[in-house]
Amino acid sequence: MENENKITQDSKQTDDEKYMRMALQEARAAAAEDEIPIGAVIVCRGRVVARAHNLTELLHDVTAHAEMQAITAAADSLGGKYLTNCTMYVTIEPCVMCAGAIGWAQISRLVYGAGDAKRGFQRFAAGALHPKTKVTQGVLAEECAALMQEFFKAKR
Amino acid sequence: MENENKITQDSKQTDDEKYMRMALQEARAAAAEDEIPIGAVIVCRGRVVARAHNLTELLHDVTAHAEMQAITAAADSLGGKYLTNCTMYVTIEPCVMCAGAIGWAQISRLVYGAGDAKRGFQRFAAGALHPKTKVTQGVLAEECAALMQEFFKAKR
Repeated sequence: MENENKITQDSKQTDDEKYMRMALQEARAAAAEDEIPIGAVIVCRGRVVARAHNLTELLHDVTAHAEMQAITAAADSLGGKYLTNCTMYVTIEPCVMCAGAIGWAQISRLVYGAGDAKRGFQRFAAGALHPKTKVTQGVLAEECAALMQEFFKAKR
Repeated sequence: MENENKITQDSKQTDDEKYMRMALQEARAAAAEDEIPIGAVIVCRGRVVARAHNLTELLHDVTAHAEMQAITAAADSLGGKYLTNCTMYVTIEPCVMCAGAIGWAQISRLVYGAGDAKRGFQRFAAGALHPKTKVTQGVLAEECAALMQEFFKAKR
């Protein structure tokens, strides 16, 4: 039994890294468009139902975060507004707005890369998510954080 | 001087009620479309730059709250993503998601009608707004709350 559990965990971790790499690709696409490099992917029963990145500059819209775009796209793709069997992968810890949206969408699992001590939801609104949402943090965290650091370094 | 201040306050209160009535019209439009009846208006230097109501059912999108639509529309109307000289009027206390968006948009003043003890941001994320945003609550609160109560009563 111990082995079985371990295998399951390993396979899950591999999947987590696989989808986080996809979110990182989205984040790099954002950086290439001079957007703050954050990417998100939503997976439903093994199928990618949304890929998105931050578009606040292009759309002149503070609500156009990667997570918000991904939620809207996933709901569109699935034909319903609740994302109860979905996992969201996002490169950086969601802000309060996005955590609220993840809560409304009832996303069952949230996986994020690097934490955001300044703007992340955990500091402001730890209760914003749906109570049943499972959270995994730290997947490819260094890579996710490095992308942000490089972007803001180049801006200075 | 005391009188002058009083006149200013009265005139401000009249304006607040005027714009809240406009937000209530939006909320009624939502109810007519079988959407949860919440309406929002954004005013910039005496000019209405956005009017919106909740569209979560129509768009199958949990992010389509009245406040979110209004922020997107106001930014579009003003040609910039920050709403620093704007007041948002909304019939019900914003949720965590919307409070986060109001924070990002740096809206200078938020006026809401009825509080929302269950889903309102004050309970979950009182620090979500921009620190400089002034908040006024309770404008036409009974009318705003009654609209919600009637809607949910009819649903039962």
